[in-house]
Amino acid sequence: MSVLKGAAIFGQSGGPTSVINASAAGVFLTALEQDCITKVYGAAHGIRGILEEQFYDMGMEDRYELELLKTTPSSALGSVRYKLADPDVDDTDYKRLLEVFKKYNIRYFFYNGGNDSMDTCNKVSKFMKKAGYECRCMGVPKTIDNDLYGTDHSPGYGSAAKYVATSTMEVYHDARVYDTGMVAILEVMGRNAGWLTAATALAAYKGQGPDWIYVPELPFDDEKFLADVKRVYEKNKKVIVAVSEGLRYADGTYVADSGVRDSFGHAQLGGVAYKLADMAKNALGTKVRAIEFSLLQRCAAHWASKTDVEEAFMAGQTAVLKAVEGLTDYCIGFEREAGEAYKCVPKLIKLSDIANTERKLPREWINEEGNFVTKEFVDYALPLIQGEFSPPIENGLPRFAKLKKVLATK
Amino acid sequence: MSVLKGAAIFGQSGGPTSVINASAAGVFLTALEQDCITKVYGAAHGIRGILEEQFYDMGMEDRYELELLKTTPSSALGSVRYKLADPDVDDTDYKRLLEVFKKYNIRYFFYNGGNDSMDTCNKVSKFMKKAGYECRCMGVPKTIDNDLYGTDHSPGYGSAAKYVATSTMEVYHDARVYDTGMVAILEVMGRNAGWLTAATALAAYKGQGPDWIYVPELPFDDEKFLADVKRVYEKNKKVIVAVSEGLRYADGTYVADSGVRDSFGHAQLGGVAYKLADMAKNALGTKVRAIEFSLLQRCAAHWASKTDVEEAFMAGQTAVLKAVEGLTDYCIGFEREAGEAYKCVPKLIKLSDIANTERKLPREWINEEGNFVTKEFVDYALPLIQGEFSPPIENGLPRFAKLKKVLATK
Repeated sequence: MSVLKGAAIFGQSGGPTSVINASAAGVFLTALEQDCITKVYGAAHGIRGILEEQFYDMGMEDRYELELLKTTPSSALGSVRYKLADPDVDDTDYKRLLEVFKKYNIRYFFYNGGNDSMDTCNKVSKFMKKAGYECRCMGVPKTIDNDLYGTDHSPGYGSAAKYVATSTMEVYHDARVYDTGMVAILEVMGRNAGWLTAATALAAYKGQGPDWIYVPELPFDDEKFLADVKRVYEKNKKVIVAVSEGLRYADGTYVADSGVRDSFGHAQLGGVAYKLADMAKNALGTKVRAIEFSLLQRCAAHWASKTDVEEAFMAGQTAVLKAVEGLTDYCIGFEREAGEAYKCVPKLIKLSDIANTERKLPREWINEEGNFVTKEFVDYALPLIQGEFSPPIENGLPRFAKLKKVLATK
Repeated sequence: MSVLKGAAIFGQSGGPTSVINASAAGVFLTALEQDCITKVYGAAHGIRGILEEQFYDMGMEDRYELELLKTTPSSALGSVRYKLADPDVDDTDYKRLLEVFKKYNIRYFFYNGGNDSMDTCNKVSKFMKKAGYECRCMGVPKTIDNDLYGTDHSPGYGSAAKYVATSTMEVYHDARVYDTGMVAILEVMGRNAGWLTAATALAAYKGQGPDWIYVPELPFDDEKFLADVKRVYEKNKKVIVAVSEGLRYADGTYVADSGVRDSFGHAQLGGVAYKLADMAKNALGTKVRAIEFSLLQRCAAHWASKTDVEEAFMAGQTAVLKAVEGLTDYCIGFEREAGEAYKCVPKLIKLSDIANTERKLPREWINEEGNFVTKEFVDYALPLIQGEFSPPIENGLPRFAKLKKVLATK
């Protein structure tokens, strides 16, 4: 296998997670140790930072701060939602990328993100090949949505699930404070996949969770929802319901479509809990509270899953090691080894397979009535939230990484 | 001082906090050790549980579970919002209380709550005295609002402040992910007092907090708000604003009055962040996100302040010890000792003084422009969020107390 000498660049793309920077730490700390990697760059705002030559020289950072990335939420380098054109239609961006790669002798391209980002990574790789420029392109997965194809689970999911399950337990107790009726509707992120909403079942497994869970894999029905809520309300006056932001009716319209579209053409959602809370309030005449976990569920690094942090780091680390070994065009995935004890090992997924493919909650993990998830789901998700990995605390609050962000120059 | 032999009853009232049960633990564990206290009861849903003879024999609980109350959010016994009538107008409830106290030989009454609850405790005490029934009545404070009179701070505030400040820091990072405009409006609880909203300044002190803080102590002005937001937006495209749910205009109307009133005649609030987010969106045409910390800020026991947990326990413990010593008609407060290092000692506040009096954020701790708080506030609040005191974790999630709740019988 040939040794490929040159610089490496890493970019973050798409919505952040609590542990996306743990993968960055895995890439940076590993890449900085490789003899064949001459420079390690971190792109500001993903692919856009490369196009605009805005990237940082990660060799200039203190090692302690790079370690702290493991427990720093959000995208430390900045992220982007930028869709590369089809190169057969418009190859302007690709040519510019090639120009920048050549200028800085970038031979390793690591791209961190979800489905869309893997598509970007794949397109870049194909173009470089076609142009005869040797460059190893590897994807590092991330998503709180857990909807990536070909992997047992995705980095970011475990921490979001732990936060959502813990907060649901806490709300469960709070909702029982008064001896009066109370319906709480918890809105969880998830446009097309219900993995994260399903994580509220981990609280139910502790006897302190939702009564009903509705995921976007199945069509939502207002009447069925109201009947479900009413049934529990009449029995014990307290109802907790978890819903995905992306719930849709049978005709395909979102329960809470704001009308706005992002640059990928995805609908911007919000307010499903408020809409359903209004419906429940009108139907039952009781106190109803809509609680949106909002950004908190994807940035609550103070309550990250240790398992997730370590696996996110491993994903970044493995991407670098595999690229150095000579591989390209793969995204790092996870495989769960058979056996009683949970053990997760990295696997390789072809970028072309993972790009733009969404993995939904299997139908058999949703109960027949379509208003909860099964024990199989709980068995699947429970190992992913094990352990706590909090940032160091300084003066009562987390100490997050502070990067110098020294711009690379040529 | 005379030894008063008899049963003790403890009730929780008003909105819960993350550490309200730590005070319960302080009362129960201390009362169970007193020779003169023959039985220890926990009232279901506060004063209502006494009126309805629904209270638990706390001596039947496992000690481990009582210890776990320190880290269990919400009101483990159930709370209530029930306003006792003026006894001169209608003494039905008081007569019933006396009847129950006599029946169970209740000689110690501990009531946990905020302003309203201290009023209840005071009224009960006065009636018992008038009826010639010897009973020592002590208040145990709690409120995330920190608005109790006569005490340096209130149990519950430190943990809520720590959660709010931490979440604000995390949102600060999340809001900076994309290189596009973003305004985040954080809605914090606080009807008339801005203490908890001001706690977001602890994140700002770490350089990762809000740009503007608006508290209900000062009249809110839409134009001023928009001008403030615009100023920061034009400079760096990211604006984080923290607002109290109880913001009011100069004419006294709430910015977000839902029109609903509770049993104390207080307006039910909600949606101020959404209202302001809409205003900012229309004015700036940028992405705006309203984030309501909602119930999470008062029940996030997983991120409680150790200082707060310990002080909440101490408040309950002190109430019992002082009552056994012979005192009555006091609420336990906190005094901060002079000196460099933070040291908090219990003090006694007359129930008649604390009842129905609200303590607001001092004007001099709000900046002159009325859109932030001063360094003096930060110095005041920082010691209150020190240390972490998480519940034990079982299988990745908190293990909260499970009480048997054995109903007392006569």
